[in-house]
Amino acid sequence: MNNNIDLNEMGLCQMLRALEKGACTTEALIEACFDRIEARESDVGAWQIKRTRDEYLAYYQANKAFFDTSPLKGLPLGVKDIIDTQEMPTEMGSPIHVGRQPVEDATCVALIRAAGGIVLGKTVTTEFAYFKPGKTKNPADLERTPGGSSSGSAAAIADNMVPMALGSQTAASVIRPAAYCGAVGYVGSRGEFSLRGGQPLAQSLDSLGLFARKVEDIQLLRAILIRQPVSIQAIQPVAPKFVMVCHGENVGDTSIAMKDATETAIELLKSQGVQVIELNAGHRMKDMVNHHMNIMAWEVCRNLAIESFRVEQLSDPLAALMKQGLTMERSTYIDSLNAAQTCQDWLWSYAPEAEVMLAPAAPDVAPLGYGATGAPHMSRPWQAMGLPVINVPGMKDENAMPLGLQLIGKYREDDALLGYASWFKELLN
Amino acid sequence: MNNNIDLNEMGLCQMLRALEKGACTTEALIEACFDRIEARESDVGAWQIKRTRDEYLAYYQANKAFFDTSPLKGLPLGVKDIIDTQEMPTEMGSPIHVGRQPVEDATCVALIRAAGGIVLGKTVTTEFAYFKPGKTKNPADLERTPGGSSSGSAAAIADNMVPMALGSQTAASVIRPAAYCGAVGYVGSRGEFSLRGGQPLAQSLDSLGLFARKVEDIQLLRAILIRQPVSIQAIQPVAPKFVMVCHGENVGDTSIAMKDATETAIELLKSQGVQVIELNAGHRMKDMVNHHMNIMAWEVCRNLAIESFRVEQLSDPLAALMKQGLTMERSTYIDSLNAAQTCQDWLWSYAPEAEVMLAPAAPDVAPLGYGATGAPHMSRPWQAMGLPVINVPGMKDENAMPLGLQLIGKYREDDALLGYASWFKELLN
Repeated sequence: MNNNIDLNEMGLCQMLRALEKGACTTEALIEACFDRIEARESDVGAWQIKRTRDEYLAYYQANKAFFDTSPLKGLPLGVKDIIDTQEMPTEMGSPIHVGRQPVEDATCVALIRAAGGIVLGKTVTTEFAYFKPGKTKNPADLERTPGGSSSGSAAAIADNMVPMALGSQTAASVIRPAAYCGAVGYVGSRGEFSLRGGQPLAQSLDSLGLFARKVEDIQLLRAILIRQPVSIQAIQPVAPKFVMVCHGENVGDTSIAMKDATETAIELLKSQGVQVIELNAGHRMKDMVNHHMNIMAWEVCRNLAIESFRVEQLSDPLAALMKQGLTMERSTYIDSLNAAQTCQDWLWSYAPEAEVMLAPAAPDVAPLGYGATGAPHMSRPWQAMGLPVINVPGMKDENAMPLGLQLIGKYREDDALLGYASWFKELLN
Repeated sequence: MNNNIDLNEMGLCQMLRALEKGACTTEALIEACFDRIEARESDVGAWQIKRTRDEYLAYYQANKAFFDTSPLKGLPLGVKDIIDTQEMPTEMGSPIHVGRQPVEDATCVALIRAAGGIVLGKTVTTEFAYFKPGKTKNPADLERTPGGSSSGSAAAIADNMVPMALGSQTAASVIRPAAYCGAVGYVGSRGEFSLRGGQPLAQSLDSLGLFARKVEDIQLLRAILIRQPVSIQAIQPVAPKFVMVCHGENVGDTSIAMKDATETAIELLKSQGVQVIELNAGHRMKDMVNHHMNIMAWEVCRNLAIESFRVEQLSDPLAALMKQGLTMERSTYIDSLNAAQTCQDWLWSYAPEAEVMLAPAAPDVAPLGYGATGAPHMSRPWQAMGLPVINVPGMKDENAMPLGLQLIGKYREDDALLGYASWFKELLN
């Protein structure tokens, strides 16, 4: 049993390298994941619906020849329950869609399945990837929220239940739960991945997200999703020469613990000879938080039109957001879209030598309680600008709760971002 | 019968105004549309699947109280068969998806249904909105292609079968069939409409499209789709002061008839005191044609991942496009995305006083034969830049075949574009 727990704690690429070396079997890895789920799921509540161990193993064994020659060897995947799956319902955290069975897999699911991943189950999402929490608790402290909206995916990764999971981010739905639970969470540049079959929330903001325990795992999954050559070898860490830092105060409320974590990271960077450039954003990033909220309000009530006609089945916060979107001036929406584009241009001209930006991934550690999923402001600016972002875990507060730091990349320079993130994660650990 | 044929030839807003005045009944309008379909469908072939007259009328009468108080009064809508509908299959013009029944309506369909439109049927699309034609013929000349990929929607509108239809454009899939058949076809700015439930082809290029016989009808449908106040009154035409003209030669092959049509339009504009600014694009627009093709190749094989695994069920051109996308360098794709953004910035700084741009909507009238849907190059540059575009019918060649001219608007200035288009259409007629 101890041996199994070790197995399930490995990262995805570590597992695949162990299989390649013959150090363990796929069945043993699968069993270890199910052992962990059986031990922890009643506390953590990461799963909306899942295969049983027997169902999974039967499926694996029936297709063993395929899996043995595939990149992912039949290892288990968690899929956020707003992403369509052919073999399981997609309920979107809403009573409106109980039992809703999609016709086909979302493209992201289809590509990972074609690469030999097996959908172990659907992970808990907040209602339509907005604010109303599901049942999931933070595996680092069961008294705390895991963050949202990709609550189940972040928790399942951080709690070592599966080595890979899919999520999505419209405001802070990948980076915040990754930060709170202590997972690597990556959000692609806007437009980077096909969103076919992922239920949209706000088309100008939605991005696909990936969760794993190592940056190299993100790189592997990313290569599968953009259909590029895959490798299970460790990613080449890239040391940046110039890092821009956006202190949390530029964006909004920031705890002392998070300020300290940022300072510690800056000192670590400097100790490696990195030139740190402090971003003086003035009011810009706080403005971007508001612009993001405007864009989201306008688009949510239009994307979720079907659901807006069933307002009695919506949570109060979602109904309020829809009302805001339906009554706001169109010029406000357009002005906010334009402001986001202008700000993206400004940001990377502020310090053209900067290769990547560091910022707090959340205002603090995960808050106590399950009634809400924490404040999303630390992600709104980058999400409005469509930038690629990754949460790098490693820092903790005095209670050993994860304090997430995010690295923000230039638009469409996702591969470069992962190289810097790999280096930065080693620096933190 | 003659009276019915008159009824079905009206535009959508004309029909609604006639209903408001009590000049006719909804049933009479519905009957007129079905009369036209029965008379012409065996020749034109606009429909993939449709309700029968009895089914439609029964549905209308069962919900008459709702329809009578709704903006669209129960009038019929055609929906391109790559857009999901809850009550009819969405087959995407492919043997892979025969009988595929979506779980719910696409958002655009749901919004028009909520406004009192009734889906009469699904209109023929080329295979996955790419090149392989369906069965539709051009209603203006049954020996010619209707254009694609929104072939059935354009033909159904031009042939007066229904007063409104939905389509989509990734390359030239709205503007070209609208130009060939003689319909008003509008493509929204990128990101303008929710694409939920519309099967994507290339996420950086896909736009929702609308077909109607009058610009005011487009304005009404657009208001429904963006959930703004609706009006069935005639749109206020807006005379531009400065119009930029992109001659077809800037983009690619252009027939003498289309060159003549462009010159005639320029003379008409000048006769109204409009200042005409000739765009000297150099190689830029021809480059944009290539950049568009690069973006499309990269994204199609990733959006249609599921289908790419069933290559034996794909047409040769689509399989070739996928192969191109899977083997091309990622840097080519990124360079083309960047070039499109740069070109959009350049285009509207070329003549900052220009309010709208005029260009041929297609290289010529619809070609003879049904084996292909005509050349798409006249749309590729604007589609790569994500601009709003409308085909304005009115010009014809010596055989009375429609010669389409397109007006191209600034990004997200769709409402202004429709005002100019309304004025321009009056000028042409």
